[in-house]
Amino acid sequence: MGVVELAGGVGGAKLAHGLAAHLGPELSVVVNTGDDLERHGLVVWPDHDTVLYTLAGLDDRERGWGLRDETWAVIDQLERLGEETWFRLGDRDIATHLLRTEQLRAGRRPTEVALDLQRRFGIGPRILPMSDEPVRTVVETDVGRLEFQEYFVRLRQTPTVRAVAFLGLEAARPTGEVEAAIRAADLVVVAPSNPIVSIGPILAVPGLRDLLLERRAAGVPIVGVSPIVAGRALKGPADRMLASLGHPVSAAGVAAIYRDLVTGFVIDAVDADLGPEIEGLGLRVLATDTIMTDDAARARLGGAVLDFGRALATGPAR
Amino acid sequence: MGVVELAGGVGGAKLAHGLAAHLGPELSVVVNTGDDLERHGLVVWPDHDTVLYTLAGLDDRERGWGLRDETWAVIDQLERLGEETWFRLGDRDIATHLLRTEQLRAGRRPTEVALDLQRRFGIGPRILPMSDEPVRTVVETDVGRLEFQEYFVRLRQTPTVRAVAFLGLEAARPTGEVEAAIRAADLVVVAPSNPIVSIGPILAVPGLRDLLLERRAAGVPIVGVSPIVAGRALKGPADRMLASLGHPVSAAGVAAIYRDLVTGFVIDAVDADLGPEIEGLGLRVLATDTIMTDDAARARLGGAVLDFGRALATGPAR
Repeated sequence: MGVVELAGGVGGAKLAHGLAAHLGPELSVVVNTGDDLERHGLVVWPDHDTVLYTLAGLDDRERGWGLRDETWAVIDQLERLGEETWFRLGDRDIATHLLRTEQLRAGRRPTEVALDLQRRFGIGPRILPMSDEPVRTVVETDVGRLEFQEYFVRLRQTPTVRAVAFLGLEAARPTGEVEAAIRAADLVVVAPSNPIVSIGPILAVPGLRDLLLERRAAGVPIVGVSPIVAGRALKGPADRMLASLGHPVSAAGVAAIYRDLVTGFVIDAVDADLGPEIEGLGLRVLATDTIMTDDAARARLGGAVLDFGRALATGPAR
Repeated sequence: MGVVELAGGVGGAKLAHGLAAHLGPELSVVVNTGDDLERHGLVVWPDHDTVLYTLAGLDDRERGWGLRDETWAVIDQLERLGEETWFRLGDRDIATHLLRTEQLRAGRRPTEVALDLQRRFGIGPRILPMSDEPVRTVVETDVGRLEFQEYFVRLRQTPTVRAVAFLGLEAARPTGEVEAAIRAADLVVVAPSNPIVSIGPILAVPGLRDLLLERRAAGVPIVGVSPIVAGRALKGPADRMLASLGHPVSAAGVAAIYRDLVTGFVIDAVDADLGPEIEGLGLRVLATDTIMTDDAARARLGGAVLDFGRALATGPAR
């Protein structure tokens, strides 16, 4: 069963891990590239690497980002040498960025570079950048326009977001690999990631949403998973961002954002009372435990999403 | 008293440290760039950085290269990811290479980048790349043509060197900073570095030797310090390289290589019996303890070289 997951960082990575427990190489994860940046001359892909490290079983679960058993000698030295080091890069993480940066400067496509990194980490699923052309997310806030990581990391998401823009989007296209994966998918999963700045850029890549709608019309189910549980984001600023942009801060609010795309929506069991409201949007609903506290919980939710998706399929069985 | 030292790596760095104890910012070190290389997308300048770290008091004296209190997390991870890691870069060292690479890619001149690094490390003397144009040392050996660091690090200097070439030399010129430092110098010191592959490239930069000879003609003393003591190199392959290239492996053999350039030559006290032979080449000789085992020994030799140079000065006093 070919499955495509659209994913941002941590939430998308955990669900990818849970889906991979059932699918292995049948899973393709299309990741947001809008958060990508260059620091200290290194090309850094936060969402890709979060999914990569998580699928490799190397994610640090206490810190919540980056690699386990990480050290910080390089960034501490850069700080001693007078550099701004608010974006903390770990030593082992820097090895990833060095490999990537060298290959990109040699002229390889981002997707090729991503697949090479994934081979080196020995993971089964593929992680596909949403496009090879650069897209950069910027947020308009009450303290002015900020690059995404300035808002997210340097200012710890404290400014209020008034608008979001994805620079470079006009020139971006889904890669051949993304298009082929979506065309071959029996199920598309929209991860419990921030709908505005993680899933938003992916769906905004010209042509990508139409490709998904074409598959949906052909009977392929598209299942969203709510990143909002009991009115709060499990991680990150999705709840505050939804509020300041005028969306209801609830699983139903997220379902409404995706209503023209998804055919089913997974909400946490604690939000089961929102089921009728979301069904009123025309979506099928699954209420289940969505908190992925450990490997077993990740695999359990992954399995539940797959079962739900299979039940929604209306096209010819493959 | 303005002094210019021509230097390679460790020997040149130790003497630079000893000279700096007396001269502070009056010292300019012109370093060989022929050993420079790119590894893992990072621009690495071994000789510049050895001098830099030594002048900053951060050189590791047990290992004999790199920074003290170094760790190896990045290079170990690169190895796990399948990279060739025979050129071992330490984590703190990598911070230097990141800063440099970023600035060079932004279009800054190597000399500007070097001076910026030196400011960040807070050293008094200046370290000047011999040229801003790239020069790459290659050695013809009994196992074929090798890039310098392949010969020096990967193959641990075991191949026999039959010839040496400096690629890119035709297009190289002394930088404005090097030329100005030489023109302002009251004394030029040729460090106890490998005369073939450390000092050789510097003297081969078109125009540089003529500039030195012009100053010598104006009465500025040029003092060489022997890297060969009791017929052996203190460090590195200088002795084997001299032998395979047909030079006598002795302080006198090195003096003969420099005979048309230097006016005085410093040899170790254990080689005092070679004094008459070197004087026979037309050079003044100082025999003294040249083994720089600690800071005091570095400063002592630095002082002795300065005194010797002053005594040789024939031009008008400044």
